[in-house]
Amino acid sequence: MNTTIETLLAHHSVRKFKDQPLTREQVETIIKSAQAASTSSYIQAYTIIGVTDPVKKEKLAELAGNQSYVVHNGHFLVFCADLHRHELLAEKHQADIADSIESTEKFMVSLIDAALAAQNAAVAAESMGLGICYIGGIRNDLNGVQELLNTPSRVIPLFGMAIGYPDQDTDVKPRLPLEHIYHENTYEQDEEKYMKQMTDYDEVISKYYHKRTGGLRTDTWTGQMAKMLSAKRRMYMKDFVQGKGFDLK
Amino acid sequence: MNTTIETLLAHHSVRKFKDQPLTREQVETIIKSAQAASTSSYIQAYTIIGVTDPVKKEKLAELAGNQSYVVHNGHFLVFCADLHRHELLAEKHQADIADSIESTEKFMVSLIDAALAAQNAAVAAESMGLGICYIGGIRNDLNGVQELLNTPSRVIPLFGMAIGYPDQDTDVKPRLPLEHIYHENTYEQDEEKYMKQMTDYDEVISKYYHKRTGGLRTDTWTGQMAKMLSAKRRMYMKDFVQGKGFDLK
Repeated sequence: MNTTIETLLAHHSVRKFKDQPLTREQVETIIKSAQAASTSSYIQAYTIIGVTDPVKKEKLAELAGNQSYVVHNGHFLVFCADLHRHELLAEKHQADIADSIESTEKFMVSLIDAALAAQNAAVAAESMGLGICYIGGIRNDLNGVQELLNTPSRVIPLFGMAIGYPDQDTDVKPRLPLEHIYHENTYEQDEEKYMKQMTDYDEVISKYYHKRTGGLRTDTWTGQMAKMLSAKRRMYMKDFVQGKGFDLK
Repeated sequence: MNTTIETLLAHHSVRKFKDQPLTREQVETIIKSAQAASTSSYIQAYTIIGVTDPVKKEKLAELAGNQSYVVHNGHFLVFCADLHRHELLAEKHQADIADSIESTEKFMVSLIDAALAAQNAAVAAESMGLGICYIGGIRNDLNGVQELLNTPSRVIPLFGMAIGYPDQDTDVKPRLPLEHIYHENTYEQDEEKYMKQMTDYDEVISKYYHKRTGGLRTDTWTGQMAKMLSAKRRMYMKDFVQGKGFDLK
């Protein structure tokens, strides 16, 4: 196993950081690594906004559900799906791209592009001994985030990423069994086997929480998911996305 | 600069592979690396299908636009957004999650989850000296892909990934200027500056193609994008996605 794979397999979210900002050089290395990720047909359909202004960080934390690590970290990034630059370049070339960039396909392309870049940023940061945490919480109030960061039409802030020097030890969280996530040649639709894999995994997770919390928590993964998914969260998203010119046509 | 960042920055798509299959151990290392990526609220909303059956690979290549490297590679993966397992676990827990998993929000979560996993797989493979190429072409005909791989409802094949021992040398393709992709504290909306960055980048790209093709190609990035985005591609996507139970509510 090489050091890169060791880094990947050692990933765990860090939610408490030392009060030490990243250097400009570190930030640039992380952004360049993000940019080096694959991009669909070279479209480069994303923008990354670094948030360093303490007032903006406080406001962002409030919008995202008051997570302290949105304020206290070494650097904070917001990853956005972005077809704004493409709209401008189309004007320059007098190309009519409205139907194309308003399609569900291009919405998917932009999200995937942004996510590939983000994961490269995460890996780069972790390889430098830094910790990271993705912040999906910014999607609690994208109207607020959009106003705060002044994002134009054809741009959707997708998630944040807190980066910094770890000030806590956290465990690697066990994942679903490999054979549940990975199928060969056909999607395995043996429901009994499929449920058994989840039940076995529930035991692993229950033991993991029991150990980590000294017996306070013993919840299962399927139980967590059933509860989490019962809540109708962020149901304004379609309106927001369409309002930003990703029409989901 | 550490070796992981060197790997990230050296990324280039590989479209010609040696005829040497990956070992089971290599495949498992890549899948475990994928699984180690962050996942929104632990949802693990993706499935990866390895395609090794030569007949299926031929068919997949045909569906994806006849790219030879879909057939000839060391291993081929298809990454899918997947809420099928969540539907099953909700039945077990008698939880009503329909509105939740049919939301635009959960569609986004599933896409981002799958993309983060995929990028970890790409990085793992490249760190092992392998090359990769994302295959968005499978979205040309997802009905065909769905039939070929037998994916159930609540599953959307998003893209493929050809992996293998490189049998070609390709260059690292220059990316947009860092200051164009990366903004601080606010989305930079100085249109003149923004256009200038793209014009400067066009020169870089034009020179890059000139050099790579011995003068045969001198196209610019904005020109490429304007042309590419003028085409209305994959406009069936909304129907497909909604037909698979991602209702974009």
